[in-house]
Amino acid sequence: MNLNKYIEHTLLKQDVTKEELLKLFEEAKKYNFKGVCVNPTNVEIAKKFLKDTDVKVVTVIGFPLGANISSVKAFEAEKAIQDGADEIDMVLNVSKLKDKDYDFVKKDIEIVKTACGKTPLKVILETDLLDKEEIKKSCELCVAAKADFVKTSTGFVKNGIGAKVEDIKLMAETVKPYGLGVKASGGIRDKQKALALIEAGADRLGTSSGVAIVS
Amino acid sequence: MNLNKYIEHTLLKQDVTKEELLKLFEEAKKYNFKGVCVNPTNVEIAKKFLKDTDVKVVTVIGFPLGANISSVKAFEAEKAIQDGADEIDMVLNVSKLKDKDYDFVKKDIEIVKTACGKTPLKVILETDLLDKEEIKKSCELCVAAKADFVKTSTGFVKNGIGAKVEDIKLMAETVKPYGLGVKASGGIRDKQKALALIEAGADRLGTSSGVAIVS
Repeated sequence: MNLNKYIEHTLLKQDVTKEELLKLFEEAKKYNFKGVCVNPTNVEIAKKFLKDTDVKVVTVIGFPLGANISSVKAFEAEKAIQDGADEIDMVLNVSKLKDKDYDFVKKDIEIVKTACGKTPLKVILETDLLDKEEIKKSCELCVAAKADFVKTSTGFVKNGIGAKVEDIKLMAETVKPYGLGVKASGGIRDKQKALALIEAGADRLGTSSGVAIVS
Repeated sequence: MNLNKYIEHTLLKQDVTKEELLKLFEEAKKYNFKGVCVNPTNVEIAKKFLKDTDVKVVTVIGFPLGANISSVKAFEAEKAIQDGADEIDMVLNVSKLKDKDYDFVKKDIEIVKTACGKTPLKVILETDLLDKEEIKKSCELCVAAKADFVKTSTGFVKNGIGAKVEDIKLMAETVKPYGLGVKASGGIRDKQKALALIEAGADRLGTSSGVAIVS
């Protein structure tokens, strides 16, 4: 198994320096990872350093709270794609899901999907804040809104666990019949966990421990 | 002292429900707080419930990471003002500050300030991630960019302390000669702390413990 091709080498901390970013890009090239995942302000520099490689530039939209209005999420996605993003990971509006305002949640995703055009859109559910029923419902809304992937976590929930095998199984069962992919993210720190998540149905792994996982 | 008039009654968690928001607005009216502080997706409902009161609607831009591109922060501020926001709290680009790219940091603030027009702009420094020199430098950049307030914290830094008396003193010393205000936020949970921060120079307190503080 080419484990490296599952990995989106991720660095989203608020105070990341240019030096740390350049190290991330070098590692992504060296290990031939699937992609790097960086904040929107770092998409341009990522693209510049990775343009002659297969490594995709992934960025995050409405991140990490998902509590931005839809038109702002869409504008941010558009700008990120202009800056060189190959894939867009947006955060679902968790509050509206809790309020059972499913039309809002679906439309929020659809508006960003329209802005993305052919650029793949992943939707971060934030599974640490959801029960099983809410995870399933979120997945169904992502299918209905024609997203390309569902993703577990931002990695920013206080005391959050991140990707859990049982959640990946549920997500995969719900979306794979409709052709969507599944990205596990948050708390993936070793090879054993990585393999368990892939076994459960993950097509991608978002992690800052990619080098340790493949070494 | 009208302690209530220092308080921005704050609820920024990712999974806040409509019921919790309505309680926040009711409390803000009852205690006649200076304002409420909510995520952009909740500005419209806040304005609707508070339009016949003195309670200001404050929202957060590029929140909590500050790692969005400037034009997205500006667009988000514009939209929030259209939705009814009376004040805008943006997050500074901490990465660019760490890289000592001061021109970028200043311009980022200026672009949002232009979008705000006459609407007051506060700049969140994220003091938990900065040393004293960086706090002072950030304050100087806020002065140069003609922001209206400097603010300590998002409240979202892992293991962060939030507003510290010594930081408020430094911020007040640096910006007050130029007419800017100071907002303390993060970890303000009781009256004693609130009074100590005001004594140190805070003009506003962002807290979810407003009711406990004034009761």
